[in-house]
Amino acid sequence: MRDVAIIGVGMIKFGRYPEKTVPELAGQAALLALKDAGMDMKDIELMASGNLYQSNAMVGQRIMQTIGQTGIPVINVANACATGSTAFREAYYAVASGAYDTALAIGSEQMGKMGLLGGGAAGGDPAYSTEGVLGSGLMPAVFGMAGVEHMRKYGTTQEQFAKVSVKNHKHSLHNPYSQYQTEVGLEDVLNARVVSWPNTLYMCCPTGDGAAAAVLCTMEKARQYTTKPIRVAASVLTSDPWTQRDLTMPDINTLTRHAAKEAYEKAGIGPEDLDLIELHDCFATAELLHYENLGICAEGEAGRMIDEGATYVGGKIPVNASGGLLSKGHPLGATGVANVCEIVWHLRGEAGNRQVEGAKVGLAHVIGLGSACTLQVLEKV
Amino acid sequence: MRDVAIIGVGMIKFGRYPEKTVPELAGQAALLALKDAGMDMKDIELMASGNLYQSNAMVGQRIMQTIGQTGIPVINVANACATGSTAFREAYYAVASGAYDTALAIGSEQMGKMGLLGGGAAGGDPAYSTEGVLGSGLMPAVFGMAGVEHMRKYGTTQEQFAKVSVKNHKHSLHNPYSQYQTEVGLEDVLNARVVSWPNTLYMCCPTGDGAAAAVLCTMEKARQYTTKPIRVAASVLTSDPWTQRDLTMPDINTLTRHAAKEAYEKAGIGPEDLDLIELHDCFATAELLHYENLGICAEGEAGRMIDEGATYVGGKIPVNASGGLLSKGHPLGATGVANVCEIVWHLRGEAGNRQVEGAKVGLAHVIGLGSACTLQVLEKV
Repeated sequence: MRDVAIIGVGMIKFGRYPEKTVPELAGQAALLALKDAGMDMKDIELMASGNLYQSNAMVGQRIMQTIGQTGIPVINVANACATGSTAFREAYYAVASGAYDTALAIGSEQMGKMGLLGGGAAGGDPAYSTEGVLGSGLMPAVFGMAGVEHMRKYGTTQEQFAKVSVKNHKHSLHNPYSQYQTEVGLEDVLNARVVSWPNTLYMCCPTGDGAAAAVLCTMEKARQYTTKPIRVAASVLTSDPWTQRDLTMPDINTLTRHAAKEAYEKAGIGPEDLDLIELHDCFATAELLHYENLGICAEGEAGRMIDEGATYVGGKIPVNASGGLLSKGHPLGATGVANVCEIVWHLRGEAGNRQVEGAKVGLAHVIGLGSACTLQVLEKV
Repeated sequence: MRDVAIIGVGMIKFGRYPEKTVPELAGQAALLALKDAGMDMKDIELMASGNLYQSNAMVGQRIMQTIGQTGIPVINVANACATGSTAFREAYYAVASGAYDTALAIGSEQMGKMGLLGGGAAGGDPAYSTEGVLGSGLMPAVFGMAGVEHMRKYGTTQEQFAKVSVKNHKHSLHNPYSQYQTEVGLEDVLNARVVSWPNTLYMCCPTGDGAAAAVLCTMEKARQYTTKPIRVAASVLTSDPWTQRDLTMPDINTLTRHAAKEAYEKAGIGPEDLDLIELHDCFATAELLHYENLGICAEGEAGRMIDEGATYVGGKIPVNASGGLLSKGHPLGATGVANVCEIVWHLRGEAGNRQVEGAKVGLAHVIGLGSACTLQVLEKV
């Protein structure tokens, strides 16, 4: 397996684009990434496209119709919320394997035109929807219950979970790609209507449209294109190794732990070596659980960690400097590539007012229930 | 890139299974392939799952729930009719790259529970359906027009196209996995109602349910499990390199030619070295076009080739000994793995009454409009 570098990233501001199509949105992100890399479509040898709700509709090939068709292999992947990161992994392995010297990963989603998650997207049969498969109802319920379990075990409070939302909204004030750029106070969060306790409205990620892209190549080729290649130190994908689930949805926690162990081993680092993390805060409760799952604090200490402000930009280990899913937004297929973009900008020192100073190693985490967990460890060379 | 072997294959008889779910059908095929390989799920390091109409519903992970969850990476792919073959390619590259020693490819589809192709599967928006994307209406029209163009250019007759259906139905009499095992005469085919001229009902593949699986591993490991490893000499995926389409849908032809050139080069063979072919006869017209696209006859000679019976089992180059899509059936996501199963059985000498005697090299071809073409060159070691 060869060393792989990211030499170009691009994304569009997450939000609502009812007048646009997915290929237009994704094509825009792809062109930004190609421009950032100093390449064009003729230089790309393989494309991996991640889009969940149109996963059966040749999205990758349709994107190529907008940015240039060159006859290369196009692979359309889907893995619930880990759809974009599975596309990234695909591009990574294409290059690492020695089979291709360059690859383009694109993640996209247009949720504004869709109805309620799940049902309609699988031919209308709810048995085939993500929620039907999980068997435990809609996502807010799952992540609410997981929060309640953390409260029961460790005495974590709703206020502590709410602080995640305050932090991530504050971070996104400085992120021009964020769906929202609005500060919310702790009282605002706590007084918002409850969606699934302890998560209130501001503690749930919004739906939206978005696209992100990354250009990967061999480290050797990267040196010809940039002075700031970002090395992929590990790209990990795991699934749920258990057949039994209970109400606390063990795969939220155990799946991430399982993947983290593998990622740290592959990258030859520990959580203490990370300078920033973009993690899957689909709900505020999830972010605190993942502090422990990723090993950046001890068991049961996540509440204290947010109280101490350790995960703010400027703190010990900034988490979701982008604003995270809670404020930057979560267009499903786009997320796993967008968090790679964010880490790359920080490692290059190009993250503007939200820059994590001196960042050398970053971690991008996505969890897709049902189940898929991806971790990308990226490092400045 | 390492040498990769297929050491196990399995599929279920294509047909209608309204009382079953996709994970049940696919799990059954996977267990057959594992048994054939002499492995169990604990020996598998990566799973690639191809299912088109439920591509967003974590089919791979759901299959694992029926046959054993081990925490390995699961990748769900979709590429129109080339969905199963894209999953096969995924498993091939996982092993060839050196990243994994074993991989399981599964293709599945349950069409009996779905409505008309396309629309419903993409959230109900026809703009996102395969047909909407193609812009030229339903598949029967596309392949009807392509046949008409061949008639215009070369004087090919409806009777010649109809002979494809006669041949493939005859072949399937000996295939226990075939959806249909019924002989049809030339008059039956010609007198059936026209679906899209020149294709009559018997010249169009049926919809159905099905699943197929293959176990791949390094050649080194293969020797520990079998005395009959089948080597993957080439696994190719290409997309349409053109932005302009006309009514004759150039990607049906040019896409396959483009892929064939690459596959023959990679495998170091020519069409004259092939002992059997499973090709994408979604409509009778398609089969004759692909004789020329794959280079087994000269331009305009496909009609004569079927007249001479050269592509019957026992002929010069047997095509679709399984019965092909026309009679074996075409559960979309299953097809690209099922044709690999068929080739493997022939190369091992295990194809029963439909055996192509002395077969050493076989080719599996799939075309997914929109666009993806896959070719697998398999050889007896």
